[in-house]
Amino acid sequence: MSPLDQLMNILAKLPGLGPRSARRMVLHMLKRREALMLPMIEAMTAAAHQVKTCATCGNLGGSDPCEICRDQRRDRSAICVVEDVADLWALERSHAFKGLYHVLGGTLSALEGVRPADLRIDALLERLSNGEVKEVILALNATVEGQTTAHYVTERLESTGIVVSKLAHGLPVGGELDYLDDGTLMAALQARRKTG
Amino acid sequence: MSPLDQLMNILAKLPGLGPRSARRMVLHMLKRREALMLPMIEAMTAAAHQVKTCATCGNLGGSDPCEICRDQRRDRSAICVVEDVADLWALERSHAFKGLYHVLGGTLSALEGVRPADLRIDALLERLSNGEVKEVILALNATVEGQTTAHYVTERLESTGIVVSKLAHGLPVGGELDYLDDGTLMAALQARRKTG
Repeated sequence: MSPLDQLMNILAKLPGLGPRSARRMVLHMLKRREALMLPMIEAMTAAAHQVKTCATCGNLGGSDPCEICRDQRRDRSAICVVEDVADLWALERSHAFKGLYHVLGGTLSALEGVRPADLRIDALLERLSNGEVKEVILALNATVEGQTTAHYVTERLESTGIVVSKLAHGLPVGGELDYLDDGTLMAALQARRKTG
Repeated sequence: MSPLDQLMNILAKLPGLGPRSARRMVLHMLKRREALMLPMIEAMTAAAHQVKTCATCGNLGGSDPCEICRDQRRDRSAICVVEDVADLWALERSHAFKGLYHVLGGTLSALEGVRPADLRIDALLERLSNGEVKEVILALNATVEGQTTAHYVTERLESTGIVVSKLAHGLPVGGELDYLDDGTLMAALQARRKTG
């Protein structure tokens, strides 16, 4: 196979890409070899060799332990449990949470054969054993798998006596009622709060 | 900037990608460093160094002249003029054309400041000077820019006496009338042909 076909085949396997977008991408890159393609190869090589997984929380970054785990200004009494590194980054972008994280690395799924031992649940329990953590916030996706996992983790944490909470359901900020699904509408109504 | 941020910033500049899809792509790659990321770096490096532009037709490939220009079984009396390498590849995939190609490298555009000298039009006239070519097929996009360019190229070729043709407009194969735009419908009606 020619280097061109080889590159297009590999790119087409990336999430969200197919043969057509991979072709377009390759042509775009080849037209900008010095300005785009060579810097991209360099950045990719650096990332492949330098990016580490934090042994404590599972985050990806330039060091292990990661910057968040090392940051002494963060609240060490709260751990936010997420499915994936992307979710951790989303929470960090929101600046809404100042505690530590724990990446499970997926959700329980009978269909896909993901069992509790495949997720970093034991590592979470171990982190909690030093008595420093007072609350675990489950920030898992509102999918069947996410909620099953939340339920399982809650059960496993019951004996520790640590407060376990999860994200609220409700109307997205800036969202319109008319566009909301029934499930969210019902959840928002049930979780209504007194004004003023 | 960390290698992670650097890579995401570069990827987000690719056509069809944004910050979110770039993040997703980077996480996907980092989870599959051996199986995906390192082979991709290798393929990208090989393509960056080995892919050449054919000096005759403008195609991209492993050699100059390209495989199509070197192939003695192809019909050297017909040249198909396209805007971009992607269009050449699309025609090749259809197996509908067995002649040679000529990539213009864009279309005339007053707005974007693309003048005739910026396209490979002189190179096309030079290729036609040996008397071997009997027909030039303009396979340009059915956009305003594409049609302006087709008109200009037709004028430039008038003095050569070579037959100049362009792609037919009409109903796409498998297409439904009800979903077709008015312009195409009108063109298909005007270009109607006797059956049987």
